[in-house]
Amino acid sequence: MFDEDDFIRRCLRPLAAVPGSAGLTDDAAVIDFPAGESIVVTTDMIVSGVHFPRDEKPALVAARALRVNVSDLVAKGADPLGYLLQISVPAGTGDGFGDDFAAGLSADHTRYGLKLYGGDTAVVPEVAPLGVAVTMFGSTRGERAPRRSGACPGDVVFVSGDIGDAALGLMVARGDPFPDIGAGHLDYLEAAYRLPRPPFGLQGAIRKHARAAMDISDGLVGDLARLCQTSGVSARIRAEKVPLSAAAKAACDSDPRLMKLVLTGGDDYQSMVIVPVDQSISFARDCMTSGFPVKAIGTCGDGPPEVVAIGMDGQPMSFARTRYTHRG
Amino acid sequence: MFDEDDFIRRCLRPLAAVPGSAGLTDDAAVIDFPAGESIVVTTDMIVSGVHFPRDEKPALVAARALRVNVSDLVAKGADPLGYLLQISVPAGTGDGFGDDFAAGLSADHTRYGLKLYGGDTAVVPEVAPLGVAVTMFGSTRGERAPRRSGACPGDVVFVSGDIGDAALGLMVARGDPFPDIGAGHLDYLEAAYRLPRPPFGLQGAIRKHARAAMDISDGLVGDLARLCQTSGVSARIRAEKVPLSAAAKAACDSDPRLMKLVLTGGDDYQSMVIVPVDQSISFARDCMTSGFPVKAIGTCGDGPPEVVAIGMDGQPMSFARTRYTHRG
Repeated sequence: MFDEDDFIRRCLRPLAAVPGSAGLTDDAAVIDFPAGESIVVTTDMIVSGVHFPRDEKPALVAARALRVNVSDLVAKGADPLGYLLQISVPAGTGDGFGDDFAAGLSADHTRYGLKLYGGDTAVVPEVAPLGVAVTMFGSTRGERAPRRSGACPGDVVFVSGDIGDAALGLMVARGDPFPDIGAGHLDYLEAAYRLPRPPFGLQGAIRKHARAAMDISDGLVGDLARLCQTSGVSARIRAEKVPLSAAAKAACDSDPRLMKLVLTGGDDYQSMVIVPVDQSISFARDCMTSGFPVKAIGTCGDGPPEVVAIGMDGQPMSFARTRYTHRG
Repeated sequence: MFDEDDFIRRCLRPLAAVPGSAGLTDDAAVIDFPAGESIVVTTDMIVSGVHFPRDEKPALVAARALRVNVSDLVAKGADPLGYLLQISVPAGTGDGFGDDFAAGLSADHTRYGLKLYGGDTAVVPEVAPLGVAVTMFGSTRGERAPRRSGACPGDVVFVSGDIGDAALGLMVARGDPFPDIGAGHLDYLEAAYRLPRPPFGLQGAIRKHARAAMDISDGLVGDLARLCQTSGVSARIRAEKVPLSAAAKAACDSDPRLMKLVLTGGDDYQSMVIVPVDQSISFARDCMTSGFPVKAIGTCGDGPPEVVAIGMDGQPMSFARTRYTHRG
C-alpha cells in the first residue's frame, strides 16, 4: 500500500539533491534564482478522470504533470529551472505507484534539465481522484517574456509541431467511432494524447522574435481567440496551413468533419507564437535550427478581436464551440 | 452554480492587480523578486474532509490555505511576498462559493501583505473533494533562513503562541466526549482549530536569532523529533513550560490525559525556534516587542536524536504516537 513517508524518503528525495531543497527534509525550499533575472512561474494541475484516464500509468501521469508546465514555459520563451510538486494520492493506492511515478519524474529531469525543489504530499479519501499539481520556474535569461497581449495587426501567427493529434487520440482512447486509418496511425494518435511533447528547445527563438505567445492547451482556435482578445487584434488563419501529422491527415482525409476537432480540441501543448512580419523568416529559420519546425498559419488584423478560420473549401468555418474545457 | 471563468474574472482578477500577474490574463506570472535575495518557497495544500471539515465556510478555507503557508514562511524568518493559487472545485458547487472564497483571500492580503501572482483552477467530479494548494514566496531580506538542521547541544527550544488549542478544538468540532469547561472556552478552542493564527511578525526575530526553526503543524513532540533527527541532537522539554490558553488549561486540569493530545496533536501553526543560550534573552525580548511572546520549553542535548518530555508529575511521558497525520 502507498505510504506517504516512504514515497517522500525513498522515491522523491533522490530527485531533490539540490542545495535549496535541503533533500526535502525541510518545510520550505530556499531558491537562489539567477541574479537580476525575472522569473517566470507557471502552475498547472492535473486530476485523474478529468485531465487523464483513471487507469493511466503513474510514470505517464508524472510526465504529463511536468510537461503541461514545460509547455507553458517554452511558450513564454523561458528555460525551465525546477519545480515544486504537490500530489494528492487516494488512500489504498498500490505499492508500486511511488516508484513508477518517480521514474516518470526522473526521466523528464534529464530531458528538460529540471530540479525538484520541494513540495507537499497528502493522502486523500479513497473516492477522491489522484491529483498532481506542479509549480514550475523558468528564466528568460534576462530577456522579456512574450505575453498574450503583444500581438499587432500584420503580425504572423505561427504554431509549432502538429496540431490535433491529442484531440483525435482522445477519441481513439475512448473507443469513439473513428475512421479506419490503420493500427499504426491509431496508436500514434493515442500516444500523442497520453504523453504531451512540448517543443522544448524553441524557447530561445521565441524570446528572440515573439511579440506575443502562449501554449495551445485548450484548442488552437479558442486559444488564439483569447490571445486576440488580450492583444486587441483580429486573426485570420487557413485550415490548410495548419500542420498535421500523417495520422491526423489520414483521419481528416477520411472524415473531413474531424478538421473542426483538430482546430478546437485540447491538449496540443504546442506553442502559438505571434511574430512581426519582418522577423518571420528568421524566426522560422531559428526554430528549424533548434529542431522544432514552426509553420505560419495566418496573420493578425485590425478587425474585432475574433478568429476567422478559412476551411479547406475556401469558406469561413463555423464552430459550435472553439474552446476545449476539461470536465470530470 | 460555480463557473470557473466567472470565478477567475470576477473574484480573483481584482486580487491580482500586480505587474507580473498580468491580471491573470496570461498562462504564467513573471515575478521580479527583490534583487540578490534568496527566495523562500513553501507549498501546502489542504483538502476537504482531510484538512478541514467538508462544510467549512469558503472564506475560512481560503484563510486556512494561506495561513498554513504563512506559518511555514514565518518559521523560516521570511516575510511573505505573494503566492500562486491552485484550486479544484467539485462540479455542482454553489454560486456564492467564489465570492466568499475571494473575500477570505482578500482579508488576508491586507493582514499579511500578500499578492496573488497567478494560479490554476479546475472543475473536478462532484464526488471529489474541494482542494486548495498555495505556493507562497517569501524573502529573508538578505539574511539566512534557519533550517531544521542547525540545532546544537545546549540550544534553547522556544515555541510561540499557545499549543494544543487546535487539536482540542478538533475534538470539540467533532463532538467527541470533552470536559465541561463552559461554552466560552469550547468556542475558543473550536475557533482556534478552524482558523489558524500563525505568529506573523515574529519573522524578524527568528532570522536574527534562530539557529534552527520550523512551524509546528503535525504536533509539537513529533515535529521537534523531526528537527532533532535532522540536526542530530536530542531534546528535553517540560510539559509544564508549554504555553497553554486558558481554555486548554481548563481542559487539561479537568482531564490531565488531554495533555498528551496537546503535545502531539496537529494544526498548531506556531513557530518552534532553536536559539543559542546566549541569545535566548534577547530573542524573547525581540519577540515580545513584536507582539508575539515566545516561551522556552526545554533544551537540546547531545543524546540520541529523540525528544524526552517531562510530564507534570516530573516523570518522562510516553506517547502512543508523537506525530499527527491528517487522514481522509
